[in-house]
Amino acid sequence: GGGMWAAGAARRAGLALAAAALGLALAAWRRRARPLREVLVFPSPPSCTEALLAEAAEPGAAARPCHCPLPHGDCPLSRLLRHLLTARRSLDICLFAFSSPQLGRAVRLLHRRGVRVRIVTDAQYMGLQGSQIGLLRQAGIQVRHDQESGYMHHKFAIVDGRMLITGSLNWTTQAIQNNRENVLVTEDVEYVKPFLDEFERIWEKYNPINYKFF
Amino acid sequence: GGGMWAAGAARRAGLALAAAALGLALAAWRRRARPLREVLVFPSPPSCTEALLAEAAEPGAAARPCHCPLPHGDCPLSRLLRHLLTARRSLDICLFAFSSPQLGRAVRLLHRRGVRVRIVTDAQYMGLQGSQIGLLRQAGIQVRHDQESGYMHHKFAIVDGRMLITGSLNWTTQAIQNNRENVLVTEDVEYVKPFLDEFERIWEKYNPINYKFF
Repeated sequence: GGGMWAAGAARRAGLALAAAALGLALAAWRRRARPLREVLVFPSPPSCTEALLAEAAEPGAAARPCHCPLPHGDCPLSRLLRHLLTARRSLDICLFAFSSPQLGRAVRLLHRRGVRVRIVTDAQYMGLQGSQIGLLRQAGIQVRHDQESGYMHHKFAIVDGRMLITGSLNWTTQAIQNNRENVLVTEDVEYVKPFLDEFERIWEKYNPINYKFF
Repeated sequence: GGGMWAAGAARRAGLALAAAALGLALAAWRRRARPLREVLVFPSPPSCTEALLAEAAEPGAAARPCHCPLPHGDCPLSRLLRHLLTARRSLDICLFAFSSPQLGRAVRLLHRRGVRVRIVTDAQYMGLQGSQIGLLRQAGIQVRHDQESGYMHHKFAIVDGRMLITGSLNWTTQAIQNNRENVLVTEDVEYVKPFLDEFERIWEKYNPINYKFF
């Protein structure tokens, strides 16, 4: 009787241990499975991002629905904007070309909100008409550019050192609305870390104290 | 005595079960952790890929070390080539610009080996001097191109429907040797699948039976 009881208790304890081990393993697996993984495919149909940007500028303000004739639903551009607007501490941007007014507005908005924004861009492109770089600099955002014969051809951004947004897409209206493009959004540290390292390497390399004046 | 023995056996069985559960969970976790995840950063220093391509053309042939003055070690370009050369069944390529002789040679080599190669490219770029597209078509490889006002600006390849190679890098010597570029290599199905879908969508869209002659 006592033996049966002890055996039963030990068996129950063993099963409980097994269940706990499985539970822990499952929790670890789900934590691994949790990081954001998304692919956005462009062109993005013309759509209105006014409400999204207004809400981000004044969080908690009464939602003012926009009545313009454009569609107001979700689209690749609005998803890209939403991901950027999650920034709380830092936004590191490394872009060959940046001329999209909506994306420029989102970046200035984050800067005003106190997010530390740093931008690296290509020297050949930044002076072209329509570039947002001038407006971003006027807003007080730090911008650095290459001084090399090759292009600074990256197209990525890192939000809070945690989320990587990378792909073929330059942040231009032409690319967003007319080109076939891809953007991969990931929180997997194996991808985020090398891009963070590359950003810091380029940021230091392009420090104005290293500029040469010929 | 019998009770103690039974309790001990049950405890041992419980612990064995717990260990087995942990082992299974760990194996599952390691299988999840297994998929290739790599980031390549360019420019790639000039280096010789002759031995790599010769070995791939004649697997098992006696290795002929190359004696040219270039470095022969591993570099981002050689890693990109190695990943492509793992193709056994299919290689789907979607590239704005393709002019790198080494990458062109690797793709023709895979085609000769019986790998089903499909290429989608941009109509505006493919006719430019130095483009590999003509040589690839001459080799009997299927190539389709856009007929749109926007650019077909993707830069990705999918090996055996399993490995995605994507980033900012066009397959040109200029980009490989001079630009700051990134290439992300992944076997995570969450990333591979949307790119596979995009490839099939574009491949059908650019079917020559849909070409319009103005």
